[in-house]
Amino acid sequence: MELVFLGTGAGMPSKLRNTSSLILNLSAEQEGYWMFDCGEATQHQLLRTSIKPRKINKIFITHLHGDHIFGLPGFLGSRSFLGGDEELTIYGPVGIKEWISTTLRITKTHLTYPLTIHEIDENVLFENERFKVLTRELEHVIQCFGFRIEQKPLPGKLLIEKAYESGVPKGPLLKKLKDGEDVELENGKTVFSTDVTGDPQQGFTISILGDTRYCLASVDLANEADILIHEATFDMETGDLAKDYGHSTIGDAAQTAKEANVKALIANHISARFMPSDIAELKEQGRAIFLNLHIAEDFTHFEWKNEQLQKK
Amino acid sequence: MELVFLGTGAGMPSKLRNTSSLILNLSAEQEGYWMFDCGEATQHQLLRTSIKPRKINKIFITHLHGDHIFGLPGFLGSRSFLGGDEELTIYGPVGIKEWISTTLRITKTHLTYPLTIHEIDENVLFENERFKVLTRELEHVIQCFGFRIEQKPLPGKLLIEKAYESGVPKGPLLKKLKDGEDVELENGKTVFSTDVTGDPQQGFTISILGDTRYCLASVDLANEADILIHEATFDMETGDLAKDYGHSTIGDAAQTAKEANVKALIANHISARFMPSDIAELKEQGRAIFLNLHIAEDFTHFEWKNEQLQKK
Repeated sequence: MELVFLGTGAGMPSKLRNTSSLILNLSAEQEGYWMFDCGEATQHQLLRTSIKPRKINKIFITHLHGDHIFGLPGFLGSRSFLGGDEELTIYGPVGIKEWISTTLRITKTHLTYPLTIHEIDENVLFENERFKVLTRELEHVIQCFGFRIEQKPLPGKLLIEKAYESGVPKGPLLKKLKDGEDVELENGKTVFSTDVTGDPQQGFTISILGDTRYCLASVDLANEADILIHEATFDMETGDLAKDYGHSTIGDAAQTAKEANVKALIANHISARFMPSDIAELKEQGRAIFLNLHIAEDFTHFEWKNEQLQKK
Repeated sequence: MELVFLGTGAGMPSKLRNTSSLILNLSAEQEGYWMFDCGEATQHQLLRTSIKPRKINKIFITHLHGDHIFGLPGFLGSRSFLGGDEELTIYGPVGIKEWISTTLRITKTHLTYPLTIHEIDENVLFENERFKVLTRELEHVIQCFGFRIEQKPLPGKLLIEKAYESGVPKGPLLKKLKDGEDVELENGKTVFSTDVTGDPQQGFTISILGDTRYCLASVDLANEADILIHEATFDMETGDLAKDYGHSTIGDAAQTAKEANVKALIANHISARFMPSDIAELKEQGRAIFLNLHIAEDFTHFEWKNEQLQKK
């Protein structure tokens, strides 16, 4: 699992930070690439990565403010033009369907792939054998959602010596056992998968939130997650503004991470008022509350490896 | 008068060329800045120039394809956020009003300035004491317009020696005469402006076209213009594609310039299939038909000075 931040700014693009977008690379987990929010010029940012639009098969939209969606129509059209023919599913608040369909109709944009748009109306958004995505409404000036992506437990590792001891020969039977299947040997003996594999491995959980002031829904959604991605539009000195505009300070983000007991926090949605030279101070303010805190920049990659978050 | 190309690509953004947008700087002519088309990330391109969004008071949209309008909503919102409070007028094809109003409503974008949207339904789009903007429908796969911007004749220069000879004293009367007003001197004598000023100076005419295949409307709209800005999505070898998709080759652009007898041609809307190393060949193909041809790149500035087009 890898995270690629495409836009880490707030409200408007600046030379340093584009409007919101984030890629969750689940290609190693056989789910392709998922996008979270799609601010204007997200397709331009993708041009500077190795991620192809056609590889993105799900887009989750936190809320309908322009800095989170104005890149969608261009992305949809270019995904078509660049050979995307596999289904794309968009999850977003009520209104997203009307906006996309009006836009495609008026601009005569014809997509070459099936597009499904789900307007969020329940807590469990998506579930398959590998993942479950849950959602909760946060507290912003308009309806805004956060997402919790849970990877389901993975089969335990094959205990190869134990398998040999049970008489399993080298070859395809080993893979079956590893995948959880019981097998019958040539001598008629049955070897049970659970006897030659370790305990199931826990999957990761990541919580990706939209714009919000501090709220209990955020803490719930991030509860015991491995990674929390939380907005931090303001610093400790501008906390009053944060409340007025339905946003968070770096302290609110850190407090949520602490209460939810997550392993790592990545703050994004950083106001253009903060210069690169202010970032160290922002980090310090947050780390006074929650130590394992990172602040995302456009194009920072994080990798989740050996249950640890690593900046690449 | 100055031209600043913000996006010179076709269809999709590339690393080298953004989608369509062009600024006509008429600040020296007291008209502020006019924008022609607004592809996605036009506001990002503006960040790399000294042009402030609030200085732009008119936007002309040639047609409703996404690569010409997907930057509009973000631009409108940011113009508000960045202190724009003066009126903005948008001229565009039928449909532009529905798209903008739907987008502003769904994204809860509140503008701090009056926004007027004129859907094009007549040939004379705009006229005041200094300028006239005419439009014609071109030949593209959807309704698409070209614009002809005519500067009206400017008052002749003040012949200062002649004014003194007629008894006009130094001071404010000279300005009145220069501005075309007749004045009465203290001795009761009337001095006529036409007697102490030269012939009216001709204004410039510039023709800015949207996407089109070669057509007579283009030639008409560019007739005897000083500058023609014409798309050139294809080269001479890909002329069949140009016709199929309602576009022009560099040869079509040059042919239009030649038949319209313009002074200078700037080609834009260049397909990403052409690498920087192909541009010389494109120019050569066009110049075989019309010599005074330029190919615009993103951020090229042109100035109209002493009746000549100069690349800055």
